[in-house]
This record gives sequence, structure tokens and C-alpha cells, in this order.
Amino acid sequence: VTAYDELRALVQRYARAADDRDVPALEALFHPDAEIDGVRGPMTIAAWLDTMRTPRGDGYSMHMLGDPLITLDEGAGTATLDTYGVVYQPERTLGMRYVDDVVLTDGRWLIRHRVSRAVWSR
Amino acid sequence: VTAYDELRALVQRYARAADDRDVPALEALFHPDAEIDGVRGPMTIAAWLDTMRTPRGDGYSMHMLGDPLITLDEGAGTATLDTYGVVYQPERTLGMRYVDDVVLTDGRWLIRHRVSRAVWSR
Amino acid sequence: VTAYDELRALVQRYARAADDRDVPALEALFHPDAEIDGVRGPMTIAAWLDTMRTPRGDGYSMHMLGDPLITLDEGAGTATLDTYGVVYQPERTLGMRYVDDVVLTDGRWLIRHRVSRAVWSR
Repeated sequence: VTAYDELRALVQRYARAADDRDVPALEALFHPDAEIDGVRGPMTIAAWLDTMRTPRGDGYSMHMLGDPLITLDEGAGTATLDTYGVVYQPERTLGMRYVDDVVLTDGRWLIRHRVSRAVWSR
Repeated sequence: VTAYDELRALVQRYARAADDRDVPALEALFHPDAEIDGVRGPMTIAAWLDTMRTPRGDGYSMHMLGDPLITLDEGAGTATLDTYGVVYQPERTLGMRYVDDVVLTDGRWLIRHRVSRAVWSR
Repeated sequence: VTAYDELRALVQRYARAADDRDVPALEALFHPDAEIDGVRGPMTIAAWLDTMRTPRGDGYSMHMLGDPLITLDEGAGTATLDTYGVVYQPERTLGMRYVDDVVLTDGRWLIRHRVSRAVWSR
């Protein structure tokens, strides 16, 4: 399996873990020192994971994530992923863009820094 | 071409064949003994293909399928594909999740068992 | 990096350049003699790029493009990409299908001919 395929799998694993509200599975995708700069502002990974422990009151989510634009530095063990997504929830739909700095850590690609922004909301 | 790329192509071929209502093209993507467990309940591939022979009364469909999460056992010639999709039709839009068991058969990856579920409908 | 991964990156670069209205970035993805057969009819790449120089009056666009179905002739340095996309704009959403003839030119994959069609609009 190539680094490109592993990085694509990382993105798709995120979608499934987020939609299943599977916090251990989410945690396994991020570096322990990861920072998330999202709709709620910058957060540590621990604080962000706490927001995911709360059961959703409003049913499902579906993270339909596109193919990431991958910039890989295989020698350095780093990559940047620029990923478009559409998040479906019962009450609204969000157009998202995620920019992730990813690092190879003990043989696994982990998200070290994420910026996520809503481009549109309906 | 790697197995990962062939498996991604299988998913995209399914979308085009389904949208074109091209039954021979669909049949070529499934194992002769395939089983489909979808919105109409479990079916043999033959029964399911029959449902696709009926012309759609209501115009187009568009299967916008995401990048599959691929679990590959290359030595065994088997893989599992977990694919999100959004299906656009004139009267409604469906959020779908497909889980496919895929087998390498005479050099081609074919769907042996499919579970498809609608996550949401609008 | 494989040709398949480079071709996928080409598709994703197009989405970002189009959404950012970054005309030089768009131009870098097309062969100098490229032809675009799109919603406005057949055009040279120069004429089409001119249409992209006009600022949008109505805010954002988001080109959510799926995984392309890739038909590669690596020896000939040519490929065909068949890509589904959903384009989100403030006033409407379009279901698109792009069929691109792509050529390896001085080490880079460039779009030589594009047919783009709207499958649906909402």
C-alpha cells in the first residue's frame, strides 16, 4: 500500500468515525499533540474529542468527503491534505474544507494540525 | 495499476452503469453468485438485475460515490469496500452507504456480496 | 507518485483553482491548445479562461468532484478521465459530468479536451 492510499484511507476513516461518534476511533487518527482549528475556534485534540462525546440530539450525520489533494514529502514523513466535504445533518447541510498537516508517527499517518472551515451552509 | 486503483475503478464503473441503466455493464461488475442486500431486501444478482431492466419513469439518476475505504487482502484475493454515496434523482436525494465484499475472479475484481443502506432521504 | 495519483490530483487542482477564480492556476492545468466543450458551447482554452476572469457577482462556488474513472495508456502518455461533480453556488446546485482527454506534456498531465455537461440543476 502506498502513502497516497494510506492518506486517502485516513480521510475516509475520519468520516466514518465522526458519523458513528466513535471517539476512540477518532482519537486513533490524530497525533496526541494535535490542534484543531474549526468552527468552534482553536482547540486541543483532547478538548475537541470531548465535544464529540456528547450524543447528538438530532440524529445522523454523514460526512461525504472528496478525494484529498495530497502534497506528500515522503522522506520527511509529512503530508498536507486539502479535502472538500459535504456534511449532511437532519437540520442542515454544510460545505466544508479541511486542510490537514499529517505526520508519519510509528508507522501510521496521523493528523497533527487541522483547519476546518464551512464554505456554505443550507 | 494497483489493486487499490482497480477497486476504485470498480466503484466508479458501478455508478456509471447504474446511471446509464446499462444492465450488461452492471452484470460485468458482479460475481455470478453475488447477493445484494439493499432497500428491497436480500436478492440474487439475477433478481436485482431484473429490477434494473425496467426503464425509469422519472428520468435521470446520478450516483455521486465517494472514495471507498478499502480493506485489502491481496494474498487472498479479497477486499472489503465501504463507500458513501449520494444518489440524485428528480424527486428525491438519498444518502447511501454500500459495504461490498469483493473477490478477484479470473483477474477481475467483482462484487460478491453487497449491503446497501439509505442513511437519509430528502 | 503514480500516474493514477497525478491524474486524481489534476482533478482536485481544477476544483480549487475554479473555486478560487485563480486563472493562472487554471491555465497551468490545460494544454495550450485545449478545447472546452461546456455549457456555453465549444471554446478555446483562451476564450474559456476569459470567462473565468470575470469576478463572480454571486459569491462562492464549490466544485465537489468525485473520484475520476481513469482510462490510462501510460505508454502513449494519454488518459481519459470521466468525473462526476456537484457544483454548489449560492443560487443553484449543478450535477456535472466531465470527460477529459489528458496528455502527458513535458512531464505534466494536462487537459487537452474537455466535455462538460450538466446532468441536473436545482
